Amino acid sequence: MRLFFRLCAFALGAAAMTAPVLAQDAIRNAITARQSLMHLYAFNLGQLGAMAKGEMAYDAETASVAAGNLARLTSIKAGPMFPPGSDNATIDKTRALPALWQNLPDVGVKQAAVAKAAAAMEAAAGDGLPALQAAIGPLGQACGACHKAYRAPED
Amino acid sequence: MRLFFRLCAFALGAAAMTAPVLAQDAIRNAITARQSLMHLYAFNLGQLGAMAKGEMAYDAETASVAAGNLARLTSIKAGPMFPPGSDNATIDKTRALPALWQNLPDVGVKQAAVAKAAAAMEAAAGDGLPALQAAIGPLGQACGACHKAYRAPED
Repeated sequence: MRLFFRLCAFALGAAAMTAPVLAQDAIRNAITARQSLMHLYAFNLGQLGAMAKGEMAYDAETASVAAGNLARLTSIKAGPMFPPGSDNATIDKTRALPALWQNLPDVGVKQAAVAKAAAAMEAAAGDGLPALQAAIGPLGQACGACHKAYRAPED
Repeated sequence: MRLFFRLCAFALGAAAMTAPVLAQDAIRNAITARQSLMHLYAFNLGQLGAMAKGEMAYDAETASVAAGNLARLTSIKAGPMFPPGSDNATIDKTRALPALWQNLPDVGVKQAAVAKAAAAMEAAAGDGLPALQAAIGPLGQACGACHKAYRAPED
């Protein structure tokens, strides 16, 4: 895709690049949006995980807020944040594998599993540390299932 | 606050800095989280705004998804993303003014206004371009009210 843009620039001159450049900006914007969403998952999950591991004192209110936020975040419809051409074979600064776009129904199943595990955490988080600890494993596994299948390892 | 950390480092040596450094990391993490949330607001609002201005063709499904996402995002409890010590007088790479922490009840009122305007947009966005256009003004004004009061202008 980047080669295509370079060829366009060469053949048509800079003035004709407006549309492709805008498209590239839109793809960058979508990648930043999904990375923002993942950061917000991690911010809230991080607090729950720290309590589960005893690194942070359990607090029912803090846990409930984090779990409620996570449940809302997992209900976001993220399709527009994954436009075609935003995979790591086409563009840099993303670890999203092309396989994601080749398996969209499975991505939907995995996303639904994350939302279900987050809803279970929302129901459990304020009910004491053992309830939180019981809910964190399935939640982490649901996140990991999507990352394992569709995200490249870190360099 | 930064001066405080520097004085600590000078007086106590690097080994004693572990706790403040961790706290600083937590503050950075919270700032990234709220900036991620604002980026997600902007990503979804941007699509609605582009349709309202005729820069993007109106599409009821696209508009409904963006508005639904925005409504979910505005229901996020953002308090943990605004810890004390994360204002722009204390730390760099944020434009959040100290006034925000001095007026938390008003921040809550302004946040509720954003959530209400986003809910109105969610109800309107799929009902045609005129309905979307009628809802975008109050939504932009609600966002702007908080930025005007509690966010420093860009340099």
